[in-house]
Amino acid sequence: MLLLQLQEIPAAAPSKRVLDQVRIIATLCARTKLARQHFPPCAIQSAPSCRPPRLLVSPVSTSTTLYASSSTAAPSTSTATTVPARLKVRDILINGDDSLIGQRVTVKGWTRTIRSQKTFSFIEINDGSSLGGLQVVADAEKVCDYEAVLSKIHTGAALGVVGVIKASPGKGQKYEVAAESVEVVGGCDPEAYPLQKKRHTLEFLRGIAHLRPRTNTLAAVARVRSALAFATHKFFQEQGFYYLQSPIITASDCEGAGEMFRVTTLPGKVSELPRVEGEEDRIDYSQDFFGAPAYLTVSGQLSGEAYACAMGDVYTFGPTFRAENSQTTRHLAEFNMIEPEMAFADLQDNMRNAEAYVKAIVRHVLKECEEDLAFFEKFYDKTLMARLKTLVSESFARVEYTEAVRLLQEEIAKDRGAWQFPDVDFGTDLQTEHERWLCEKKFQRATFVYNYPREIKAFYMRDNEDGKTVAAMDLLVPGVGELIGGSQREERLGRLEAKLEEFGLDKEDYWWYLDLRRFGSVPHSGYGLGFERLVCYVTGVENIREAIAFPRTPGSATF
Amino acid sequence: MLLLQLQEIPAAAPSKRVLDQVRIIATLCARTKLARQHFPPCAIQSAPSCRPPRLLVSPVSTSTTLYASSSTAAPSTSTATTVPARLKVRDILINGDDSLIGQRVTVKGWTRTIRSQKTFSFIEINDGSSLGGLQVVADAEKVCDYEAVLSKIHTGAALGVVGVIKASPGKGQKYEVAAESVEVVGGCDPEAYPLQKKRHTLEFLRGIAHLRPRTNTLAAVARVRSALAFATHKFFQEQGFYYLQSPIITASDCEGAGEMFRVTTLPGKVSELPRVEGEEDRIDYSQDFFGAPAYLTVSGQLSGEAYACAMGDVYTFGPTFRAENSQTTRHLAEFNMIEPEMAFADLQDNMRNAEAYVKAIVRHVLKECEEDLAFFEKFYDKTLMARLKTLVSESFARVEYTEAVRLLQEEIAKDRGAWQFPDVDFGTDLQTEHERWLCEKKFQRATFVYNYPREIKAFYMRDNEDGKTVAAMDLLVPGVGELIGGSQREERLGRLEAKLEEFGLDKEDYWWYLDLRRFGSVPHSGYGLGFERLVCYVTGVENIREAIAFPRTPGSATF
Repeated sequence: MLLLQLQEIPAAAPSKRVLDQVRIIATLCARTKLARQHFPPCAIQSAPSCRPPRLLVSPVSTSTTLYASSSTAAPSTSTATTVPARLKVRDILINGDDSLIGQRVTVKGWTRTIRSQKTFSFIEINDGSSLGGLQVVADAEKVCDYEAVLSKIHTGAALGVVGVIKASPGKGQKYEVAAESVEVVGGCDPEAYPLQKKRHTLEFLRGIAHLRPRTNTLAAVARVRSALAFATHKFFQEQGFYYLQSPIITASDCEGAGEMFRVTTLPGKVSELPRVEGEEDRIDYSQDFFGAPAYLTVSGQLSGEAYACAMGDVYTFGPTFRAENSQTTRHLAEFNMIEPEMAFADLQDNMRNAEAYVKAIVRHVLKECEEDLAFFEKFYDKTLMARLKTLVSESFARVEYTEAVRLLQEEIAKDRGAWQFPDVDFGTDLQTEHERWLCEKKFQRATFVYNYPREIKAFYMRDNEDGKTVAAMDLLVPGVGELIGGSQREERLGRLEAKLEEFGLDKEDYWWYLDLRRFGSVPHSGYGLGFERLVCYVTGVENIREAIAFPRTPGSATF
Repeated sequence: MLLLQLQEIPAAAPSKRVLDQVRIIATLCARTKLARQHFPPCAIQSAPSCRPPRLLVSPVSTSTTLYASSSTAAPSTSTATTVPARLKVRDILINGDDSLIGQRVTVKGWTRTIRSQKTFSFIEINDGSSLGGLQVVADAEKVCDYEAVLSKIHTGAALGVVGVIKASPGKGQKYEVAAESVEVVGGCDPEAYPLQKKRHTLEFLRGIAHLRPRTNTLAAVARVRSALAFATHKFFQEQGFYYLQSPIITASDCEGAGEMFRVTTLPGKVSELPRVEGEEDRIDYSQDFFGAPAYLTVSGQLSGEAYACAMGDVYTFGPTFRAENSQTTRHLAEFNMIEPEMAFADLQDNMRNAEAYVKAIVRHVLKECEEDLAFFEKFYDKTLMARLKTLVSESFARVEYTEAVRLLQEEIAKDRGAWQFPDVDFGTDLQTEHERWLCEKKFQRATFVYNYPREIKAFYMRDNEDGKTVAAMDLLVPGVGELIGGSQREERLGRLEAKLEEFGLDKEDYWWYLDLRRFGSVPHSGYGLGFERLVCYVTGVENIREAIAFPRTPGSATF
């Protein structure tokens, strides 16, 4: 714990050490609003004007007291001058510049590699804030207890280092830290630790999902994922959308299909299960927690429509569930969906919003996650950057389903043998090979296919005037296939009631959904994007189990 | 649909109508990055410099084509000059200024009230973007089919209005729209619509949760809630935290207590349930979907710790569940939690982060939701603004549990009869009356109580050196009581193992949690904040069922 009272700095002649402290913290705060609140103007003005590293100090609005995070116990003025403020690795390697050279800092993290010699050692430490580790140079003559300390450092060990930032003579990094002291915060037994320096298979890492964020790949996925999530909120909030947390536990089944998980508090003893009167073999869910059968949601769309029909534009972003027993690289039992819903919006508005959204979030990660994307391009997908840059710069193609079918027929006719599913006609549910040909070969960019046959789409989609199609859209992207599915919703009460009947659904179950069409009904549209599929698309990682922290699949809910 | 090709505007003498279009859209874009991408500099420079209203047009990066949202079918150049761009009510009443006066706009929304007369009518329309509605003045001589149209407008009807913005002579609003045309997009039968102009009880509204966001209170809650959610992401992302979506379905029970919901795909027919071999009365969950008993999570903390011990600082924000059969105004079966977890952080760091976080998000809503907060102060809590302003301006009090007990004993001794629970001693779990006295009477501001007796806190909290207390903290706030609970986590493997045994928990169940202490263990801390309780605190709404869109409580999972 470092406590630095700025008021206490003697105005006349502060020591170099105190000045260093002020410079580091002022650098941290420069150009942020905090600076104006917490620092005397002189401190700010004299701070070097660099891109501000992330702020580790907490804003404290009633005083000018500033704290730097550290694990040492209690605040004390005596340590204030000995333990310098902590910087994250990112603040040095990515956000830092030459003004940091010569500054004393604290760095904390985990050992990635160590090359130990009698007179000095190189330790690479990583704290999760960046892909690259920071090189710490420990000189036997300067670091106290050199041999004893070094003998305890192995891959995975947690360290606290105090030292001075230097320009690095080695290649691969611009800065390094010359250690004054190295503390082993938490050791790591090299015999027992499952993560050694060598590369592990992604499958092996799934078995140690609690440790795998310590690897380059999974940490990079986690950073990109976090950036995509934030960019999502940022985009919709800036566009005037409200965030809706749609319910997870529900009694309604939006899609009218799909295997659902039951949620229950009924006992695990058969003899204690309540039975339906007169039907001893049926469990009586009216005696369950919610007084009715309850499930995990498959989509927040219905709630989204209720809120859009009151608030205008809303979006959900949260977990959804499918109890499908499929072990593929594209399916999870628990995944996350982003579902915007817009009132007074037709299918064209819907496509425009989806295009703007996808471009905005990809643009965000291109800017914020440069290092991680370069890593993915190097190790997972050589075409990654080209693919992402095309996405943000080219306008998305738009093709009606009927035209897409015609184009496919024309192409398939050239060589039927090249296709697994050569029979494509109006009414055909397009297969992945068809979708990929459309966006990868024909249009060579993200492509909306819209106005699908009404029979192959959900009941709530709006009938077009042709009597054959609905105002549905899918967004296909090269490399992945379908990324987004959406539609304009049927807002005409009579038509929707007829559709429910046609699809064999019970009007009574949808009473409140129909109410939205009874009272002040408006044209409205929305779409859903599977977040993990997006993470795969943006990172080039193929298996969706790597796109989420703790994947849930048939047979697996550990961690 | 309005399609406006800026290139097509004749440079020499554009008509006034076209100039109006350009001005509106340029105003919309002014001071945003979009402006630079999409507009010729002259258009931007000549745009009136007002606070930019929210942007309804989608960024289209490859051309200068701009679209304004509207429900009319296909783009056509002929309509380009007749249907002006849509503005939301917020863009006029809250973000707008006098430069909007005289501009033709489209406004869409739902009728709140209508005062109809033979020669003119006043219609208040609301589109969810603000609390206040926009007054539309319809003049019988100007609006086509005046009588026929007006006869169809009742509370709740959806309208599309084209008109000119004027300064309003009436009191209560600064601007109004003089209608050129009024279209009834969706009617609303006044006999059947449950939401009439009169005030409804919150309890009544819970029964129509799909319509209640159309009321002032619930729409204001939804807006404030959305702002709080965004401010949460913004705060943590700016502080260098990564967003972690912790799993919803889980096999572990973090708190080692608490009623949990079971997740299953086993059939509802008793005869079809798989049984444990040799124990015919026990259901065999090894044959269930996940191959093991699975539950809905009660906390993301354990996953948070795994990620913090790799990535440094992370936060979760998502649904959590408690199958408690309690019908109170403070409990939900499904609610949302924010759970930050920080590596290399002790309890002091934890309190500082919690204080900075709570202040940042309240500051955000004070700025962004002024109108809604004024509404809540007027109708729900007269002390609201004072309470919130104190929160952001005063530093939080900090008191050790032992000292809090001493203060309480001292106070209780003065008049034991005034207390429902007058027996307070070291080891007492503080009651709400104690907590409220501490923060409301004694310290009169948000108060951290910390270092609690180890017996009354969870197994994972770090033992203090006194042998009696753990490094736990609760944040108490006036009016609500406990808002945050957190702790430094026990990072010492031996101590944690002993603690598990002491609490009667099975080490095997926590193998991966213990691994975090085996390999590069670090001091780390975190806390949890119940999001719905925060919404109650910030809005002054008392019942937690109003703080969430679709509340789930015992006996109720409809909608």
